[in-house]
Amino acid sequence: MEEYLEFAKQIAMQAGQIMLKYFNEDNGANYKFDQTIVTKADIEINNYLIKQVKEKYPLHSVDGEEEQFGKSKHVWVCDPVDGTAMYARHIPVAVFSLALVIDGEPVVGVVYDPFTENLYTAMKGEGAYRNGMRMQVNDIALDDMRSVSNFDMWPDAEYNIIEPIKTLGEKTYFVSIGSVIRACMCVANGEFNVAIYPGTQHKNCDVAAAKIIVEEAGGKVTDLFGNKQRYDRDINGTIISNGKVHNEVVEALKMMEKKTIL
Amino acid sequence: MEEYLEFAKQIAMQAGQIMLKYFNEDNGANYKFDQTIVTKADIEINNYLIKQVKEKYPLHSVDGEEEQFGKSKHVWVCDPVDGTAMYARHIPVAVFSLALVIDGEPVVGVVYDPFTENLYTAMKGEGAYRNGMRMQVNDIALDDMRSVSNFDMWPDAEYNIIEPIKTLGEKTYFVSIGSVIRACMCVANGEFNVAIYPGTQHKNCDVAAAKIIVEEAGGKVTDLFGNKQRYDRDINGTIISNGKVHNEVVEALKMMEKKTIL
Repeated sequence: MEEYLEFAKQIAMQAGQIMLKYFNEDNGANYKFDQTIVTKADIEINNYLIKQVKEKYPLHSVDGEEEQFGKSKHVWVCDPVDGTAMYARHIPVAVFSLALVIDGEPVVGVVYDPFTENLYTAMKGEGAYRNGMRMQVNDIALDDMRSVSNFDMWPDAEYNIIEPIKTLGEKTYFVSIGSVIRACMCVANGEFNVAIYPGTQHKNCDVAAAKIIVEEAGGKVTDLFGNKQRYDRDINGTIISNGKVHNEVVEALKMMEKKTIL
Repeated sequence: MEEYLEFAKQIAMQAGQIMLKYFNEDNGANYKFDQTIVTKADIEINNYLIKQVKEKYPLHSVDGEEEQFGKSKHVWVCDPVDGTAMYARHIPVAVFSLALVIDGEPVVGVVYDPFTENLYTAMKGEGAYRNGMRMQVNDIALDDMRSVSNFDMWPDAEYNIIEPIKTLGEKTYFVSIGSVIRACMCVANGEFNVAIYPGTQHKNCDVAAAKIIVEEAGGKVTDLFGNKQRYDRDINGTIISNGKVHNEVVEALKMMEKKTIL
C-alpha cells in the first residue's frame, strides 16, 4: 500500500507541473461533446498516468476522465484536472485527483493543488494528511456562523438541488468554488463542513480520491440519498461532509428534483 | 488622473505583498459582529492605505471596509481583501480593490490578485487593462454552453436571489467563487458573463473599483433593479455584466425576495 501511495504522489507532483505549465498561457480550452471543457493539461496528464501505470503495474486498469483502459479489479481512478472550467478561466482553483480503487473501494487517495502546493493523501485505515500533517474534519453545525458549504450546480447535472439549497442556504454561507474536489479537501481540512455534488455520468472518477481522504479525516461520504457508493461505476451524486451535518443534508436533499436529461 | 492611478497601483502591489505574507500561516481569522471574517491582512492593508492617503492627499477621504476617515468629495473607496472567507480558508481567490470616487462616481479603479499576479486597472474614458493588456467583455448569451455566471449568497444578504438563480441556472453554469470582485474581473476579461451581488450595508466599498473596470471593458453595472448607482453611500446590490445579458438578469431578479434583517 505504501508503494502505491508513493507511486500516486509522484504522478501527482508531475501532474501539478503540467497544470502550472499551461495555466497562464492560452490553454486551448475547447468544448467536448458533453459541454465540459477539456484542456491540454487534462489530456497530457491523463496520457502520462496511463503510460506510468502500464510501465509499473501492467496488470492494473486506468479509469481517467479523458481516457480509460483495462478491466482489472485494481483500477487507478483519476480526474486529471478537477475544476477545468475555473482553470481554463485562469482562476487558481483546480486539483489533480487519483485513487487506487480495489473492488469498488478506494484504498489509496491523492489530491494535489499545485497553486497552493498542498498535497492531500490517505491510505485506508491510516488517517489523512496535508503535506504530511494529520487532517481532521471540523465539528461545525450548518447554522454556526463559521459554517461554509459548497455545492455544484450546472444545467445538465443529474439532479436539480436548488430547493434543498434554498433551505440550507438560510443557515450556512454557500459557495460554489468550481472544483468539487478542492472543496472536499476543505472539508477534510476542517475549513468547510459539507460539499454537495449533484451527479453526472462517469463522475466516480472525480470523487474516489476525495472519498478516502475525507473519511480518513473523520468525515462521511455517501450518495445524495445517504447510501454507500462503489467507485468502479457511476455514482448517484455525492454528499461529502464533516459527519455532523450529514443527516441534515440528506434530509434537505429529499426536496431535489431528478432532471430529465434530453 | 494618471498620478492617481499610479498611486493606486503602488498601494495595490503593497497590499498584495501583505496578502501573500499571511496567506499560508494561520491568519488569525476571527468573527466580526457582522459575521464576516476579518484577518490581519485586512487590517494591515486598511491601515497602510489610510497612512498613504494622509501623507500624499491629506484633503482626501478614505472609505475602507475596516476603517474610514474624512468627509471630502474625493474618496478612496477600498476593500482590503475581497473574498476574506476564502482567503482565511487558504483558497487563493481573493483580491485587493481600490477606487478613487469623486462625487459618487469612480474615476480610477485598481484590483490586484496577488495569487495570479494580475493587476486590473481603469481610468474613466481610457479603457480597462489587465497587466497592461486591453480587456473586453465577452458577447456570450446565458444559454451559450460557454456561459459562466457568478452569484453570491449568504444568510444575511439584503435580498434572497435563490428564485432568480433557479431560473437562470437552467441556462448557465453558475458558480460562486467566494470573491465577487475576482468574479467581476472575469466579467471584464471576457471569462464570465455576469456576476450578481445581493447586497449588504456598506458594500459600495467592494464594488466601486469593479464598476469602472467592467464599464471601461465594455460591460454594464447597475443595482439589482437595473438602476445606476453612486459609490459614496449604500448600494442596493449590484449586477455586473457583459451588457448583453443585463436585461435578462434584471428581469429574472424581479422574483427575488427582500429579506427581513433581524
